[in-house]
Amino acid sequence: MTSASLLRDLRVRGDRLCQSLLELAQIGGTLKGGVCRLALTDLDKQGRLWVVEKARRLGLEITIDQIGNTFMRRLGKNLQLAPIMTGSHIDTQPTGGKYDGNYGVLAGLEVIETLNEHGIQTQAPIEVVFWTNEEGSRFTPVMMGSGVFAGEVSLDHAYGASDIEGKKVKDELQRIGFLGEQIPGEHPCGAYFEVHIEQGPVLENKEKVIGVVPAVMGLRWFDCIVHGFEAHAGPTPMDIRVDALQNAISIMQKVVGIANEFKPHGRGTVGMVQVFPNSRNVIPGQVQFSIDIRHPDSAILEKMTSLLRKYILQISSEKSIVIDLKEVSYFPPCNFDSDCVDTIRRAAIELGYSQMDVVSGAGHDAIYMNRLAPTGMIFIPCKDGVSHNEIEDAKAEHIEAGANVLLHSMLAFAKPVNH
Amino acid sequence: MTSASLLRDLRVRGDRLCQSLLELAQIGGTLKGGVCRLALTDLDKQGRLWVVEKARRLGLEITIDQIGNTFMRRLGKNLQLAPIMTGSHIDTQPTGGKYDGNYGVLAGLEVIETLNEHGIQTQAPIEVVFWTNEEGSRFTPVMMGSGVFAGEVSLDHAYGASDIEGKKVKDELQRIGFLGEQIPGEHPCGAYFEVHIEQGPVLENKEKVIGVVPAVMGLRWFDCIVHGFEAHAGPTPMDIRVDALQNAISIMQKVVGIANEFKPHGRGTVGMVQVFPNSRNVIPGQVQFSIDIRHPDSAILEKMTSLLRKYILQISSEKSIVIDLKEVSYFPPCNFDSDCVDTIRRAAIELGYSQMDVVSGAGHDAIYMNRLAPTGMIFIPCKDGVSHNEIEDAKAEHIEAGANVLLHSMLAFAKPVNH
Repeated sequence: MTSASLLRDLRVRGDRLCQSLLELAQIGGTLKGGVCRLALTDLDKQGRLWVVEKARRLGLEITIDQIGNTFMRRLGKNLQLAPIMTGSHIDTQPTGGKYDGNYGVLAGLEVIETLNEHGIQTQAPIEVVFWTNEEGSRFTPVMMGSGVFAGEVSLDHAYGASDIEGKKVKDELQRIGFLGEQIPGEHPCGAYFEVHIEQGPVLENKEKVIGVVPAVMGLRWFDCIVHGFEAHAGPTPMDIRVDALQNAISIMQKVVGIANEFKPHGRGTVGMVQVFPNSRNVIPGQVQFSIDIRHPDSAILEKMTSLLRKYILQISSEKSIVIDLKEVSYFPPCNFDSDCVDTIRRAAIELGYSQMDVVSGAGHDAIYMNRLAPTGMIFIPCKDGVSHNEIEDAKAEHIEAGANVLLHSMLAFAKPVNH
Repeated sequence: MTSASLLRDLRVRGDRLCQSLLELAQIGGTLKGGVCRLALTDLDKQGRLWVVEKARRLGLEITIDQIGNTFMRRLGKNLQLAPIMTGSHIDTQPTGGKYDGNYGVLAGLEVIETLNEHGIQTQAPIEVVFWTNEEGSRFTPVMMGSGVFAGEVSLDHAYGASDIEGKKVKDELQRIGFLGEQIPGEHPCGAYFEVHIEQGPVLENKEKVIGVVPAVMGLRWFDCIVHGFEAHAGPTPMDIRVDALQNAISIMQKVVGIANEFKPHGRGTVGMVQVFPNSRNVIPGQVQFSIDIRHPDSAILEKMTSLLRKYILQISSEKSIVIDLKEVSYFPPCNFDSDCVDTIRRAAIELGYSQMDVVSGAGHDAIYMNRLAPTGMIFIPCKDGVSHNEIEDAKAEHIEAGANVLLHSMLAFAKPVNH
């Protein structure tokens, strides 16, 4: 029998969760306080075994699929129900932090430890998963494990991926003992929640504790090459120059201009620029640069793209110059399940945490899970919005708050017995 | 006795000059039709010996100074007069052309051959010089030989310059047999003329044959570093970004804007850009770029610089960002001697060539010579304004025209005997 007040007052133990995060961060810990634990390395193996051992101590049932995704299940009362899942990844960037991914996995185990301690049984099983190779630093594509699970990346394609030394995913899975037998995607899922640091500055700036994530932005990546005419900076008068950089600049400004037209969610970034010949006294003959535009609404993302293309055509025609635009990547926007999103928001409110909607600008395993089951994400602030960096940091109170919202959101779906 | 009509009708032989240019271009000739004859290499030695041998056949007296500048003198009647000089350089860029420098030297020898053929004696000696290491590709600084000659570069500094293999100028001069004994600058000079391809597109665009060069632009080089805040392109909203590239862009546009304010001679170029971390999905945290501004008028060049500094301060203050601006090079403007300039213009007109004034945007040995003696430069068109390139090209008729203007300009100063 679980009383209503016990449930209402149920909280994770933040200190225990923070302690877990620090312990896991020692495996591959760097001098600057970060973590380097690339997917399927010996260190990843150590990290995986540490997490699995912790799960065993909590009495969880472990299954591993053919791409090394590892599921840790707490049984439910009703054997017919699919598990309510949570999780993330424990692989990191080469100069990664302690929280990205790891927080989502360990917060899930903390939820289960809390349920265990208070003897709360649920109708549906509760399950924590860590997905293989979310970061994509050693093997591409990124989000490999969840991509294979969702059927968006073929197992063969994933197995064939190799690192810079030519080592293959399948061999490395076998080597570290995580080549499972379960067919990816045959594992049932009733709903999926993922708690994660924001990896952006919005919550910190707005001084909110919880980010309710209604959607993940769609993303389009382009390579743009502007052709000009290389000439000496001295003898060539301004009027007859065909300066590739000055023309490229106007497109770079337009990228930002278009994003500004579609605030607050529009994003436009030029992150990479190569000038040729890149010589101090030569008018650039060619400039190549990247364009990254994002928006959570498909139609708007399409509109942004078409404004960009139109502008490039206009410049090309006005200036009589050749401009190549090539799309190199596309991820459509992802809208999370409204029940999951509402549940997260309600949990945050009932727990008394300040909260706001934050659209995710970055990719997460939850994007692929959203194609299979009702899915929602919870963000907490991270210091200065910095992630993928050894200085990545998050406050203990926020780490605890995110896990509490995860606990109550999962309970709302897994349903405590006798409530 | 030289008759007035003989002098008036005196012309160089363009075919012979073009043939000389082609022959010299075979020493270090490249597959693409250019020349690679870096200063003080074995090929430079071969080129120098070829020119000296040609000068000996013309009966010229050869002297070499301590920096390898090589003077080839045709005696004058009046032993008190300083020589009227012409010349340029025969070293090339690694992917250089047949005309840059070489034209100025061989046109000088063609002038002398023409005088010899017609038995014209001059009051003052006529002298052709090739200066050591004008290009600066193998050893810095550029315009080394004329710089030492003019006392602007010390002999010790020049001797100490080493190439990427650590070979020193003095040793290389000795090795190729061109370490002379004459003290640089002790060689007298009555006036100096230099004929050169324009290295820019103005003459070709305006369909003029002769460029009369009243001045060489002053030049200021800066390195500018704009500091921003590196952040993820996805999660970071537009309003709170500190995008180093977008701020740098506005300065890059201003560089061109300032040059456009001071047409037709103002120049503003950003040729080199480095973005950090230069990653597709990271908002640039830092951008470094070069600024090259030029103008032939000192006061205007100063004004351009102050407008640039003012704008950078304004952006820095408005956006609360740190911008570093460091001057890395300064060459003041050079105004050629008005007698020389007028003489060149008159010669072009009397010879029936279309002509116009063209301010030189690039550096030449004549800049240093202008500090010692009355100096003037003659430009001829080059194809598409292209130079420092194996495809550098010039028309035979222009090569001939430039040499004729040189001939008559030098005669005006050297004074034919009995006229």
